[in-house]
Amino acid sequence: MKVEIITIGDELLMGGVLNTNAAYIAGKLSKLGFEIIAASTVGDDEWYIEEALHKAVDRADAIIVTGGLGPTPDDMTTWVAAKVCSRRLVLNERALENVKKRYEALGLEMPQEAQKQAILPEKAEVIPNPYGTACGYILHHRGKILIFLPGVPREMERLTDEFLIDFLIREKRDTESVRIRLLKTFGLTESKLIALLKQARIADERIKIGFLPVFPENYISITSRAPTPSEAEEAINKAEEAIVEKLGIYIYGKDEDTFEGVIGRLLKSKNLRIAIAESCTGGYITHRLTNVPGSSEYLERGVVCYSNISKVELLGVPQKIIETHGAVSPECAVAMAQGVRRISKTDIGLAVTGIAGPSGGTHEKPVGTVYIAMVTEKGGRDKGYRFRGDREEIKVLATYAALDMVRRYLLEDTS
Amino acid sequence: MKVEIITIGDELLMGGVLNTNAAYIAGKLSKLGFEIIAASTVGDDEWYIEEALHKAVDRADAIIVTGGLGPTPDDMTTWVAAKVCSRRLVLNERALENVKKRYEALGLEMPQEAQKQAILPEKAEVIPNPYGTACGYILHHRGKILIFLPGVPREMERLTDEFLIDFLIREKRDTESVRIRLLKTFGLTESKLIALLKQARIADERIKIGFLPVFPENYISITSRAPTPSEAEEAINKAEEAIVEKLGIYIYGKDEDTFEGVIGRLLKSKNLRIAIAESCTGGYITHRLTNVPGSSEYLERGVVCYSNISKVELLGVPQKIIETHGAVSPECAVAMAQGVRRISKTDIGLAVTGIAGPSGGTHEKPVGTVYIAMVTEKGGRDKGYRFRGDREEIKVLATYAALDMVRRYLLEDTS
Repeated sequence: MKVEIITIGDELLMGGVLNTNAAYIAGKLSKLGFEIIAASTVGDDEWYIEEALHKAVDRADAIIVTGGLGPTPDDMTTWVAAKVCSRRLVLNERALENVKKRYEALGLEMPQEAQKQAILPEKAEVIPNPYGTACGYILHHRGKILIFLPGVPREMERLTDEFLIDFLIREKRDTESVRIRLLKTFGLTESKLIALLKQARIADERIKIGFLPVFPENYISITSRAPTPSEAEEAINKAEEAIVEKLGIYIYGKDEDTFEGVIGRLLKSKNLRIAIAESCTGGYITHRLTNVPGSSEYLERGVVCYSNISKVELLGVPQKIIETHGAVSPECAVAMAQGVRRISKTDIGLAVTGIAGPSGGTHEKPVGTVYIAMVTEKGGRDKGYRFRGDREEIKVLATYAALDMVRRYLLEDTS
Repeated sequence: MKVEIITIGDELLMGGVLNTNAAYIAGKLSKLGFEIIAASTVGDDEWYIEEALHKAVDRADAIIVTGGLGPTPDDMTTWVAAKVCSRRLVLNERALENVKKRYEALGLEMPQEAQKQAILPEKAEVIPNPYGTACGYILHHRGKILIFLPGVPREMERLTDEFLIDFLIREKRDTESVRIRLLKTFGLTESKLIALLKQARIADERIKIGFLPVFPENYISITSRAPTPSEAEEAINKAEEAIVEKLGIYIYGKDEDTFEGVIGRLLKSKNLRIAIAESCTGGYITHRLTNVPGSSEYLERGVVCYSNISKVELLGVPQKIIETHGAVSPECAVAMAQGVRRISKTDIGLAVTGIAGPSGGTHEKPVGTVYIAMVTEKGGRDKGYRFRGDREEIKVLATYAALDMVRRYLLEDTS
C-alpha cells in the first residue's frame, strides 16, 4: 500500500517550525511496512492544496492530510477536499457533536465560527477527536482513501496512534511482508561506519541497508521484503547479525532504544547508582538521564559547577588543582568525578569540564577542549577531546562521550 | 519569486529523522520575502524525483533540491536532474577538485567511487563545498533556476548561508517589498491568544497575521506586503505595536530571540547572578540557560537534587520539611531556593520540585504537580502548578514556568 503524506499550513513553509507531523506519520507507518512514497507540504492556498491532492490521488493508495481543518478563514482543506472529490459540503452531526463536547469539556461557550469545523464533505466518515475541536474524517474517492487529520501535532499524534494505524492495517492487503529495523550507533565516523558495513557483505537481495545520520548518532536501517512474515523476519535477523558482528560495541541499541535509556537499563540491571558533575555541558547530561522514566532509581544527584568556586565548594575540588592545571584539565575532571561520587555516596561519579565556546578558548585549550572522567570503586578513567562545532553541538558531543564512557564501562564490567 | 523546496532521501520518509533541511531553507528565505510555495520530500527513487522536478519547474521560479548527491548508487539526484533538463552527464573539473581537496583535507586517499560526485550535468555551475565531498550546482532550464545542494544538514546549512541566500537575492527582481516579523509569547492558551489578537483589530490589508504553536511557546507572525520597503516597514511596525499593546508581558521577544536568551540579557543588564536547584526538571533549566553563550557571567551553579538526601546535604533543606510536607511541596521548593541562593551567594535562587511521571503520582499530588519558588533579597515568591502531558512535556512546562517567574520579576524590578 503506497502512502502519501500532505501537510498543510503556511507556518510549515515559514521555517522556525519543524514539520513534525510528516516525520511522525512516516515513522509510524514505515515501521509497519507501509511504503511512504512522498511527503509534500503546501501553504494555506487553495490552488496548491488542490494540486497536491490531485497528484496524490493519482499515485498513492492512501493519502494522509494534516492541517487546515480549523475554524479560521485560512483553514481551507475541507473546502478543497470537497472540490477534489466532487462532494457537496454538509453539516455533519457527528462532527458537530465533537465540537460541542470539546467546548463543554473546556467549560467554554461554543462560538458561532466553530461550527465551520463540522461542515464536511458529504459521506465523510468522522474520526472523533477528543483532544481538540476539529475532528478528522475519511473520504473514499476513485478507489483511494483520503484521511484528514487536524494539524495540531499532539492531536494528530494521538489520532494517529489511536485510530489511523489500526485503520490502515485493516485496509492494507499486501501480499508482501516487510520488516524494518534500526540499529543505532555512536562513536564511528560516517566513512568508518560505511566501510564496516561493506565488510559485513550483505548480498541478500531481500535486504536493503540504509544509513541515517541523526547527530551525533548514526542509524543503520535494515529493510527486509519477502513473500512471508517468517521469511522476512529470518532475512532481517541474519542481516542484523552480520552487521552486529562487524560493528560490535558501537551499536548501542535498536528501534525504540534511546542512548540514555540503554544506559539507565544497564545501571538498573547492575544495581549501580550514579552522580554527575557537569561544567561545560551545563546540565545536559543530567537532563538526558532524567528523561528516562524511573531514572530516580539510579541517578542520585547532579551538580552543574559553572563557577570555579562552586567546584571547590560543592565537590571539594582542591583549589590548588584549579590554580595549577586550570578548571579545564584532566586533573580537575578527575577531582570533580571523585568529589561528586564521595558526596553522593554513589557507585559511579561522572564529570565533564571543558570549553563550549564561542569564547573562552586559548591557544592550548581551544573551544571544544573537553575532559571527561569517571570514578568507580575499581578506580578511574579519563579522556580528553577536541570537539568541533558550535556551542550546542559541543554540549551534545561532550554529553554523548561522557555517557558512552559509562556505557562501555558497564558492558565490560562483568562483576 | 516563487521558490519550491525538494528534499530527497529515503531516510526522510522513514521517520525518526526530521526534515530540518526544508525548515532551514524555508525559514531563511521566507524571512527575506521569498514566497515558498511548496516543499516536497521524495525517497531515493528515480520516478518520484523526476516527477517532483517536473512539477516544480512548472510552477516555481527557483527550485532548491537537497540530497542524493553522494557517491553511493542510491544517490541519483544528479542523474535524474540531467534527464529532466535534457543534459549529458560530464566530468566537471571544478567539482572533481572539490572532491580531491576534501579528501586531502581529511588526510585520506580518494576512493574511486568518490569521482561519481564530480560527474554533473553539462553546463552545471558548481557551488564549491568546503565542508564535504559533494559540491552543489546550479542549472538553468526553461527560464527557471534549479539549485542542487548536498543533503547533510550542516553542509547544506553552510552553503545556504554562504552562497544560496546572496545568489537568490541577486536573482530576485520583485517589485513588491515584504517584511516578516515573529512575536514570541509564553503563558497564554491558544484561544486566549487568538481572542486578544482579535481585539488588536488589525484591518490593514497589507498585513497578514499568522499563528504558530511551538510547544510550549506560541508565535505570532506578521507579514507585510507593500510596494516600497519603507511602506512595508511602516505597516509591520504599526501592526506590531497594536499586538504588543494587547499582549503585553506575554510577548517575551521577537524574531531570533530565545526564551533563555532574553532572560540572560535581563540578568546581565541588571548585573544579577542566579543559581538553580532542580528536582523534577532534572537539569533542563540549567541546560537551557547554559545554551546561551556567555551564561557563565550570570549562572553561578545548578544542582539537581534527585534524591531527598541530596536536597538536605547540598541545599540544607531541613529534614523536617521533607518529613512534614514531602519533597514535592511549596515549603520544600522555598527551602531549596533559599538553600541554593545561600550556598552560591547569588542574587536569585530558583527552585523546582515536582512529579514528572509517569509514576510517582498520588491522589493529592498527581503526576504534573510542580512547585516553583524564587528567592531574592526582596523576599520570595512561589507558585504551584498541575501540568498535563508526558514526562518530557512536564519537564519543559515546569522549566518555562520557572524561567518565566524570573523573567517577570526582572521586568517588574525597576531598581
